[in-house]
Amino acid sequence: MTSNKITIAVDASGGDYAPHEIVKGAVKAAQKYKVDIALVGRKAILEVLVSHYWNRPGISIVAANQAIAFDEHPVNAIRGKPNSSIVVGVNMVQQSEAAAFVSAGNTGALMAAALFILGKIEGVERPPLCSIVNLYPTIPALLLDAGANADCRPRHLLQFADLGGIYARYVLDIEKPLIGLLSNGEEDTKGNHLTVESHKLMRQSKLNFFGNIEGHDIAKRTVDVIVTDGFTGNVVVKTVEGLGERFVRLRRYRRSLAPSSLLGGQALAQEVGQESLVKGMDYREYGGACLLGVKGNIIAAHGRSQAAAITNAIGLAIRTAEQQVSDKISQEVSPHDSAESDS
Amino acid sequence: MTSNKITIAVDASGGDYAPHEIVKGAVKAAQKYKVDIALVGRKAILEVLVSHYWNRPGISIVAANQAIAFDEHPVNAIRGKPNSSIVVGVNMVQQSEAAAFVSAGNTGALMAAALFILGKIEGVERPPLCSIVNLYPTIPALLLDAGANADCRPRHLLQFADLGGIYARYVLDIEKPLIGLLSNGEEDTKGNHLTVESHKLMRQSKLNFFGNIEGHDIAKRTVDVIVTDGFTGNVVVKTVEGLGERFVRLRRYRRSLAPSSLLGGQALAQEVGQESLVKGMDYREYGGACLLGVKGNIIAAHGRSQAAAITNAIGLAIRTAEQQVSDKISQEVSPHDSAESDS
Repeated sequence: MTSNKITIAVDASGGDYAPHEIVKGAVKAAQKYKVDIALVGRKAILEVLVSHYWNRPGISIVAANQAIAFDEHPVNAIRGKPNSSIVVGVNMVQQSEAAAFVSAGNTGALMAAALFILGKIEGVERPPLCSIVNLYPTIPALLLDAGANADCRPRHLLQFADLGGIYARYVLDIEKPLIGLLSNGEEDTKGNHLTVESHKLMRQSKLNFFGNIEGHDIAKRTVDVIVTDGFTGNVVVKTVEGLGERFVRLRRYRRSLAPSSLLGGQALAQEVGQESLVKGMDYREYGGACLLGVKGNIIAAHGRSQAAAITNAIGLAIRTAEQQVSDKISQEVSPHDSAESDS
Repeated sequence: MTSNKITIAVDASGGDYAPHEIVKGAVKAAQKYKVDIALVGRKAILEVLVSHYWNRPGISIVAANQAIAFDEHPVNAIRGKPNSSIVVGVNMVQQSEAAAFVSAGNTGALMAAALFILGKIEGVERPPLCSIVNLYPTIPALLLDAGANADCRPRHLLQFADLGGIYARYVLDIEKPLIGLLSNGEEDTKGNHLTVESHKLMRQSKLNFFGNIEGHDIAKRTVDVIVTDGFTGNVVVKTVEGLGERFVRLRRYRRSLAPSSLLGGQALAQEVGQESLVKGMDYREYGGACLLGVKGNIIAAHGRSQAAAITNAIGLAIRTAEQQVSDKISQEVSPHDSAESDS
């Protein structure tokens, strides 16, 4: 960690496949991206696992002898387990020992730790999870909030739009991101109480606001940034994932009946379009969601992440850290207008 | 309409492809299902269109010289246009001249007409739209509310569960339908305010309640009946539809590059699994959603319905009418407990 390379801290105790798949994904990421990776977790087992890899430059181990389970209450867990991988990892970001922290562990605990240890950026009320929607492989879009805030107010959605715009600019390289509000109708007046009021705020704002979009606009990539509350966002992201998984399973079954050697090369090549859509529906491809609006770069990876997903989540963490997203948000986020109604 | 066959009224003026595709779909349905179909719309044009078909037993025309556009305000439209196809069609159900009414027109106006003309069944507070989720072709599931009520209270969701259970029993032939509450986490305490409170009510009820389900459970078909508010339900149904449409487009493109004659028979046969999933994501296959809890059988077809979708929507209307769903709901719906909190 004395090199000039950035260091990404990775939670080796969080997720369904920890620690083995996390270590595998981290070793791969260190090679692929030429970064330093600090594996945070139980030292003894991590040393055994890491020693298994011949080529492991850039991998270090940081001891954290506690782990937070999936069903633990987030706030209680981070208070009661100061030596948990999540608390230690977030602390590394706070101490600038790591440029970002990636965890496939308890997302609630990760968010709570980020809020308590790093704190919110001034002007940000409710940090959202920003997910990558990758249905067009060359031009991903963003969806936020993907699950951090189940109940939201209109001003929160306005702020998600602002934060998503900043993330799209720096991480997706979109100069003037187009923002859409997810609703149940495209007309301005369509929606539930939350979206109708949010629409008005967005229309009045300086955002590059497209207006309402509907569910079918997600697959059409009508906008660069899809804004919604954390409940709807979570349901939508998981619905897409679930369909993607089912496609992958059907394809596997199909291939077990007809191995690729039996399929003509042409038929296989023509599959590419559908393949990329299925890939885009797969959380393993984008790897993680970024928690926006806290003082540090935090990536929540999927609980079921295996090595490839962890490698991709680390890639997202690197891009987020290199673009100094957290700092950019501090500088650019529109201050919360406290005069606004609390509706 | 003097035969013993049931009569289904069909809105020939509603939808993007009215009246041509509606007439085509209705003629097909009359042949396929051996029912009488009353096409409701502009008489002159309908007579010309119907005369085009040689074989058209069971088709009659009911004059309705007004049409309600997609962007008209539902309540104003039905008040101002008593001779619109929607008002005339719903009146036919009210007068028992038709066993069900199918419309691909302005869904809001259709629902408003149903509420005003037919009225709600006693005990039903907020009639929901019940959509067929057809991702496993042999065992469809239901999702409700698919868009009728954007803002809901916990007791409304409890009632959607009750109504969905009745519809699943009679229309899908599922003896003891399993009910799931769509949320952003499977634990009982996960959700937004609405789902957490709804969960408690469902847990205490006599429902065959599975508990919370998540977005990925939709493709897994974890439950028979998916309960959610009309905002989330609408977004989810349209998200699935949008992905289905994109698959269909990619497949068409693929086939234009490699016509099926160039693909081996085996490769094509193996496509069947994926094919059925794509079909299940396509609104044209299930045709429509049933408005539950009004005194009559009303099917809202997709605005973009072409002939095949209309034929399928009529099929759903027939099944709904034959099973006397509206009457069954009157007899079986649990009375609304007025003592319950208004939270």
